[in-house]
Amino acid sequence: MDAPISLAATLATFEEPWSPRTVGALNDYKLMVVKAHGDFVWHAHPETDDCFLVLSGRLSIDLRDEDGGERTVEVGPGDLYVVPRGVEHRPRAPEGADVLLIEPKGTVNTGDAGGDLTSPERLA
Amino acid sequence: MDAPISLAATLATFEEPWSPRTVGALNDYKLMVVKAHGDFVWHAHPETDDCFLVLSGRLSIDLRDEDGGERTVEVGPGDLYVVPRGVEHRPRAPEGADVLLIEPKGTVNTGDAGGDLTSPERLA
Repeated sequence: MDAPISLAATLATFEEPWSPRTVGALNDYKLMVVKAHGDFVWHAHPETDDCFLVLSGRLSIDLRDEDGGERTVEVGPGDLYVVPRGVEHRPRAPEGADVLLIEPKGTVNTGDAGGDLTSPERLA
Repeated sequence: MDAPISLAATLATFEEPWSPRTVGALNDYKLMVVKAHGDFVWHAHPETDDCFLVLSGRLSIDLRDEDGGERTVEVGPGDLYVVPRGVEHRPRAPEGADVLLIEPKGTVNTGDAGGDLTSPERLA
């Protein structure tokens, strides 16, 4: 029963893009804020849906279907989008965006892709 | 892989306070928006934490500890607060507030209290 967490105040404490900060926990889920900027990597989470709530700015999420076809959803401020489990996706934010992420604890940000953008869990 | 959901557009479709609308699903969790206005009922969720993200306005959450002592947390726009499972609480919004709620599917809004404010699940 700690104090409420200001998402904006937390976002003001760091600059690094694609480096989520955990701001809270809901049962076995973690709530994170992330600064999106530029391109993330194509990846999928075979074991979980992936929830994005854009707080400011604009996030483009490229999606690849089972046939290899691609499309993009544009997620603006106050918009919520859930990528279904197993769906390949690539978040992008050419102009930058602040985003709330909700995922099961233990979910890796780069999913099945790994690579340099893989982030350890960082507390706010 | 539907379109993103605008929380503001969904909130503009109804007026009834304390009547959550489900806007999305994340695995076995539901994402809801609710218009808070006036006092909700004291209740607890013995089986789950309870997550509030205030989108606009101000939400006061009264909390009762095991000894019966009470305190209030004030949750403003862009603030996140998680009521731990089993903790008695009463949300209040004298001036009104728009709130994102995240709870496991099947969670009843009035928890163990029941009563007139108990809401069926309503899709946005």
